[in-house]
Amino acid sequence: MVLPHLDEIDQRIVNLLLENGRLPYAKIGESLCLSRVAIQKRVESLIEDGIIEHFTIRVNVAKLGKPVAVYFEIVVEPRLAEQIGYQLAELPDVINIYQMTGPSTLHMQAHLRDEEELEKFLYEKIFALEGVVSVDTQLVIRNFKPTGI
Amino acid sequence: MVLPHLDEIDQRIVNLLLENGRLPYAKIGESLCLSRVAIQKRVESLIEDGIIEHFTIRVNVAKLGKPVAVYFEIVVEPRLAEQIGYQLAELPDVINIYQMTGPSTLHMQAHLRDEEELEKFLYEKIFALEGVVSVDTQLVIRNFKPTGI
Amino acid sequence: MVLPHLDEIDQRIVNLLLENGRLPYAKIGESLCLSRVAIQKRVESLIEDGIIEHFTIRVNVAKLGKPVAVYFEIVVEPRLAEQIGYQLAELPDVINIYQMTGPSTLHMQAHLRDEEELEKFLYEKIFALEGVVSVDTQLVIRNFKPTGI
Amino acid sequence: MVLPHLDEIDQRIVNLLLENGRLPYAKIGESLCLSRVAIQKRVESLIEDGIIEHFTIRVNVAKLGKPVAVYFEIVVEPRLAEQIGYQLAELPDVINIYQMTGPSTLHMQAHLRDEEELEKFLYEKIFALEGVVSVDTQLVIRNFKPTGI
Amino acid sequence: MVLPHLDEIDQRIVNLLLENGRLPYAKIGESLCLSRVAIQKRVESLIEDGIIEHFTIRVNVAKLGKPVAVYFEIVVEPRLAEQIGYQLAELPDVINIYQMTGPSTLHMQAHLRDEEELEKFLYEKIFALEGVVSVDTQLVIRNFKPTGI
Amino acid sequence: MVLPHLDEIDQRIVNLLLENGRLPYAKIGESLCLSRVAIQKRVESLIEDGIIEHFTIRVNVAKLGKPVAVYFEIVVEPRLAEQIGYQLAELPDVINIYQMTGPSTLHMQAHLRDEEELEKFLYEKIFALEGVVSVDTQLVIRNFKPTGI
Amino acid sequence: MVLPHLDEIDQRIVNLLLENGRLPYAKIGESLCLSRVAIQKRVESLIEDGIIEHFTIRVNVAKLGKPVAVYFEIVVEPRLAEQIGYQLAELPDVINIYQMTGPSTLHMQAHLRDEEELEKFLYEKIFALEGVVSVDTQLVIRNFKPTGI
Amino acid sequence: MVLPHLDEIDQRIVNLLLENGRLPYAKIGESLCLSRVAIQKRVESLIEDGIIEHFTIRVNVAKLGKPVAVYFEIVVEPRLAEQIGYQLAELPDVINIYQMTGPSTLHMQAHLRDEEELEKFLYEKIFALEGVVSVDTQLVIRNFKPTGI
Repeated sequence: MVLPHLDEIDQRIVNLLLENGRLPYAKIGESLCLSRVAIQKRVESLIEDGIIEHFTIRVNVAKLGKPVAVYFEIVVEPRLAEQIGYQLAELPDVINIYQMTGPSTLHMQAHLRDEEELEKFLYEKIFALEGVVSVDTQLVIRNFKPTGI
Repeated sequence: MVLPHLDEIDQRIVNLLLENGRLPYAKIGESLCLSRVAIQKRVESLIEDGIIEHFTIRVNVAKLGKPVAVYFEIVVEPRLAEQIGYQLAELPDVINIYQMTGPSTLHMQAHLRDEEELEKFLYEKIFALEGVVSVDTQLVIRNFKPTGI
Repeated sequence: MVLPHLDEIDQRIVNLLLENGRLPYAKIGESLCLSRVAIQKRVESLIEDGIIEHFTIRVNVAKLGKPVAVYFEIVVEPRLAEQIGYQLAELPDVINIYQMTGPSTLHMQAHLRDEEELEKFLYEKIFALEGVVSVDTQLVIRNFKPTGI
Repeated sequence: MVLPHLDEIDQRIVNLLLENGRLPYAKIGESLCLSRVAIQKRVESLIEDGIIEHFTIRVNVAKLGKPVAVYFEIVVEPRLAEQIGYQLAELPDVINIYQMTGPSTLHMQAHLRDEEELEKFLYEKIFALEGVVSVDTQLVIRNFKPTGI
Repeated sequence: MVLPHLDEIDQRIVNLLLENGRLPYAKIGESLCLSRVAIQKRVESLIEDGIIEHFTIRVNVAKLGKPVAVYFEIVVEPRLAEQIGYQLAELPDVINIYQMTGPSTLHMQAHLRDEEELEKFLYEKIFALEGVVSVDTQLVIRNFKPTGI
Repeated sequence: MVLPHLDEIDQRIVNLLLENGRLPYAKIGESLCLSRVAIQKRVESLIEDGIIEHFTIRVNVAKLGKPVAVYFEIVVEPRLAEQIGYQLAELPDVINIYQMTGPSTLHMQAHLRDEEELEKFLYEKIFALEGVVSVDTQLVIRNFKPTGI
Repeated sequence: MVLPHLDEIDQRIVNLLLENGRLPYAKIGESLCLSRVAIQKRVESLIEDGIIEHFTIRVNVAKLGKPVAVYFEIVVEPRLAEQIGYQLAELPDVINIYQMTGPSTLHMQAHLRDEEELEKFLYEKIFALEGVVSVDTQLVIRNFKPTGI
Repeated sequence: MVLPHLDEIDQRIVNLLLENGRLPYAKIGESLCLSRVAIQKRVESLIEDGIIEHFTIRVNVAKLGKPVAVYFEIVVEPRLAEQIGYQLAELPDVINIYQMTGPSTLHMQAHLRDEEELEKFLYEKIFALEGVVSVDTQLVIRNFKPTGI
């Protein structure tokens, strides 16, 4: 990742932590010829500045039984767009949901167990909402950048 | 996150690490009434089983100077779809790129500095590729689930 | 038809019955160097396993006075999709009706007597239903695989 | 099935054979108060007239390892439409393929093993053909008339 | 015009009358080596058989102050399609109006005085009707076959 | 037909001739309280002014063996639009063909014998032309104004 | 600008004033070899004839804090098109709003401060209006003719 | 016009000049209780800061013989988008031309004399360009904000 606003050392710290979020600060210090304390201070600044949001793990959703990545374009009555957006955002299987330029549809991604769950999700969670005009459902066929976010 | 395939303890470990990827195993053990070693073993299994892919940090892309989240739908000549998919996947600003069901367009997301960079990106990185038939560009107006992935 | 999950003998039995569903088991046995009884047992297993659903005939719908094959894409109000789907499925002229990925329209096929019946069918059976938003009607011009199902 | 052009006895014969294509003619005769020979003659006429095309079995494609029913709309260069139509019709996984009124796309159905095979099928069998302009791929989510053809 | 169902003499009579509907039957007879009475009888048969609907004139609509040829595609609520179709058909400026295969829109042609009349026609005659969902309005830019009907 | 630019007598003459193009001028004179000569003079002026283009007959195309009214929207390469427009205009079955505002497609109407001729027409007369990108074919299902032009 | 209806001197006056609306009439007179009074008279005629509508300044909207040029296509219920058109026309940020041929959407341009204001504008000024069916929002990426109006 | 970045006096000066670009600075001074010199200085600053771009006149294009306002959406081959954009921008009848988010079409406005000139403009200036894939042409039917820019 190219990080234009950081000095070189911060950039390398961020990139090392992106690859291994549990890397001890002493180890980072070694590879950058800095003390453990210096690294810790910089990491704390990066957190304070809101550049590092939090430490986390990357989970393989497919292996956890949600292998079906689905992308929805949901046409809604404009006056209910906001309400529907927040209703859908609360569903635990929904990964993200956006209002974008272009047509006033909501763009939503979800991870689901299988086609059967997709059928139920579509009919019970989306079709059932007041103000939903139509839904376009698409499944991922090929992921060209599996290392992407 | 609902994780249907794990026992309850693994589920709680995964959820704790999702929230804080650097949480010491001893601390996790305390809150689950287990030893540090038991937690470490379970984490190692979760990694071996490919459920935890890796430890990482969540970076605020906007604060790093890439606040413009752009979504592209790229219509391509089918015979060049594969080649174009991999060419675009290599661009560092591209977050992800998919082939989906529905129309045979490529779906791509990128984070860019500003509208000027978008103009250059569009003309120099996408329009310039052989086999690109047309491009639909959309910007995020509202994010209904900012805590999503 | 390629049948990946069957052993070779079952495959050949299925293919022979696809071509002639009344072929006596003794004849099948002859061509596979097996006894009539062995064939009968295997057919019974194929039926029990749900691989052979039932013996039937292929009828020429056009010759029976329903030569107009029509394909409908029916845009419906999502909240009424399920109800409309089952209402249309009950019409005797409807061959099949599906909910698919892509736009949330219903895909339906019917065989009709002539254009006049199509006009009546469209106005009285589809347009008249509550929740039908629009209908796209298409007629077959050329069948590239007349031996297909 | 309503069969407007047949007399009542032929209609009942056709319907009995649709339900069980191996039903002995003697049994059909019993239920219609006719001799076995009379039934056989009528069946032979129905075959000669092309109304019964052939005796066959209905196979459960999903159980045979091809559970993914896919529907393709293939936009082609008009001058190559005919050639592409026949090329695709020859693929064993293709169930049917039509040229219809409406947009000059080809409508094609196929049964495939899984999403992986779909990816390969799309890239290697469709995208690779000269003259294919774009492809819209849709999967069945719900079948409202499972007893249909 | 090619008229496949007529004998050669009827064809020539129809074509002569298409070009000049007032041509005396004696003249037609001369050029076909037939008597005036023979021609009259044949014309009467053509009228009785409904092949000649009536004698008329071709009027230049543009010269009569209606030079703006407009084509409308009117999306309607299906349940009101029939009613709207007949309401619009009654407007004197409407030349023709059809329900076609393809999307369930009504196709309508009208001849209007100028753009101002078009604005009024659109707002007062079409937009004002209950059940009109949207309208696509197109003006003729070039007529490639001015001698056509 | 409302004819804003004509005086009342000319209007009535035009309307009488629209209904019966062979009506003797003496008869028209009677019903308008004018001499045969006066009517003839006015008709000659109407012809000279180009308001009456010619006398003709209205033929029932369906009865003549061309009952299938087809409407085509033909997407063409813009640089070949003019050439294709004139090529298609020369086909005898083509009734009219226009370039309109809206998408740069050609709008064309034809009368054809049956679906088989439509298939041939589509493949041999339209698809075969260089520069034809795609074709949308629609058939008339209902004519709401059969008395229209 | 080419101004076909004016004589050459009027054309040159208009073009000089387009470039500098405050140019003294004496200066214009000098460059056209005419008196100040003659120029003033011609300018007054141009105003009386409605050719010059008024003297104004060209303001750089971006520099004034409204750099985001947005183009909206607003699909409305036809019966409310007129009312919505005038409601939106009254918003001070709206530059222009039209009903055009083609689909019965309203075309509207606005200048806004930033994406946040766009989000509020979309939800509070457009989505909130009764009769708005959907909205397509587009931002300018490149202006090919910055000297245009 | 709301001008958020200016102090109140500058705002009033800009608004007075928008209404009458030739208003003497002394008059502006009177109404704002400032000297002519103070106004002149502020105007000069507004020009230097690029807020006032230049003094100009608003011309009634319709009265000048270009009453047909046309809006084009031009689909182009992406690799030629830039070149085509600049080629079209040079045409004197073109008012503006943009690349926008949404589909990668060019949005262009022009003022033309009449429909005949539109036909020629379309065929000779747009269709004739290499890389133009299709063009959507729309005419203004109603202007809801005639006082807009």
